[in-house]
Amino acid sequence: MITEKYSSKLLENAVNEFSRLPGIGKKTALRLVLYLLKKDESEVNSFCESITSLKKNIKYCKICHNISDTEICDICSQSNRHSGIICVVENIRDVMAIENTHQFIGLYHVLGGIISPMDGIGPSELEIDSLIKRVKEEKVSEIILALSTTMEGDTTNFYIYKKLKNFPVKISTLSRGVSIGDELEYTDEVTLGRSIRNRQDFENSITGI
Amino acid sequence: MITEKYSSKLLENAVNEFSRLPGIGKKTALRLVLYLLKKDESEVNSFCESITSLKKNIKYCKICHNISDTEICDICSQSNRHSGIICVVENIRDVMAIENTHQFIGLYHVLGGIISPMDGIGPSELEIDSLIKRVKEEKVSEIILALSTTMEGDTTNFYIYKKLKNFPVKISTLSRGVSIGDELEYTDEVTLGRSIRNRQDFENSITGI
Repeated sequence: MITEKYSSKLLENAVNEFSRLPGIGKKTALRLVLYLLKKDESEVNSFCESITSLKKNIKYCKICHNISDTEICDICSQSNRHSGIICVVENIRDVMAIENTHQFIGLYHVLGGIISPMDGIGPSELEIDSLIKRVKEEKVSEIILALSTTMEGDTTNFYIYKKLKNFPVKISTLSRGVSIGDELEYTDEVTLGRSIRNRQDFENSITGI
Repeated sequence: MITEKYSSKLLENAVNEFSRLPGIGKKTALRLVLYLLKKDESEVNSFCESITSLKKNIKYCKICHNISDTEICDICSQSNRHSGIICVVENIRDVMAIENTHQFIGLYHVLGGIISPMDGIGPSELEIDSLIKRVKEEKVSEIILALSTTMEGDTTNFYIYKKLKNFPVKISTLSRGVSIGDELEYTDEVTLGRSIRNRQDFENSITGI
């Protein structure tokens, strides 16, 4: 079934290119390519233009390394944010996810990935040195480690913790526990066990502080 | 949740372009765009080049209107195929699906869509006139209507049937029935009802003819 035979080399080439994208198989790639093929040339051009111009003109914020159109990103240049609290995240999607909660008024630091020896990503590939530099040079009172709860995330957390533990800065991490709306019987054992050990004061939990 | 705020206009633009593709939402679009952003410029260029060059150089077979690199497609130019039997399909994906079965040795006719007033697609937008012309001018003994079993497919089937019924050509359609491997209790009523009415001779069903 999977060894498709395409009626055109050009088509096959385009399908192969699209199927390299994450989560896109050959069938989906064919559907996308045929969709674009039906569109006007101007639409196809503006599709391609959008990605090449992004690639060519994109900037990364000099402070937090978030994707930005300017030297300093929107968040870092907002004067009403608390510059003493830095939330360390893996990538821009995490920044967006946290911003969407409207619960955080500090700044970010985008690592650009997490330590993953399997994928050949070591600490030097990530924006860890620049984080240390921020802690050294700016008045940072707290670093919130907000990485994935995976082995790679934990490794990265620990690496950063070791680098920062001698600085006068509080290092915290996102609270782990049962998701809001989850039923206990479907919560995995590790999460449930940890949420009992790290149980919260009830009054704090209802006020949400 | 859905009103995402992007840290860059260029990024937002690329995400919007990608999310226009069928089945791609904003979140997936962002994932694809960030994936491409991490790749080398040459890879991004070859991605774009593949689709623009397809759009620019693609040909449609003069006989069956399938996508092709040449004036006459591979299938139509094969001398060992039965040119008297034409299988009418909606698009190239259906050609590929039927070719994958290795059960058909005739030729195809790709309509380029089906009649769908809701989407503004009438008979004149489709390759129906050229099908009539093939029946008139070539020695066609059988037309197999292999369109979707939807209302639009049925409408298109009926439209073609009316146009062709006065020609000395047999008009058939794909057999409808319970899918192989399906359990009866999960088969929908219409399919099951029709498969009882159009029950097959048992001997034919086991030999597969």
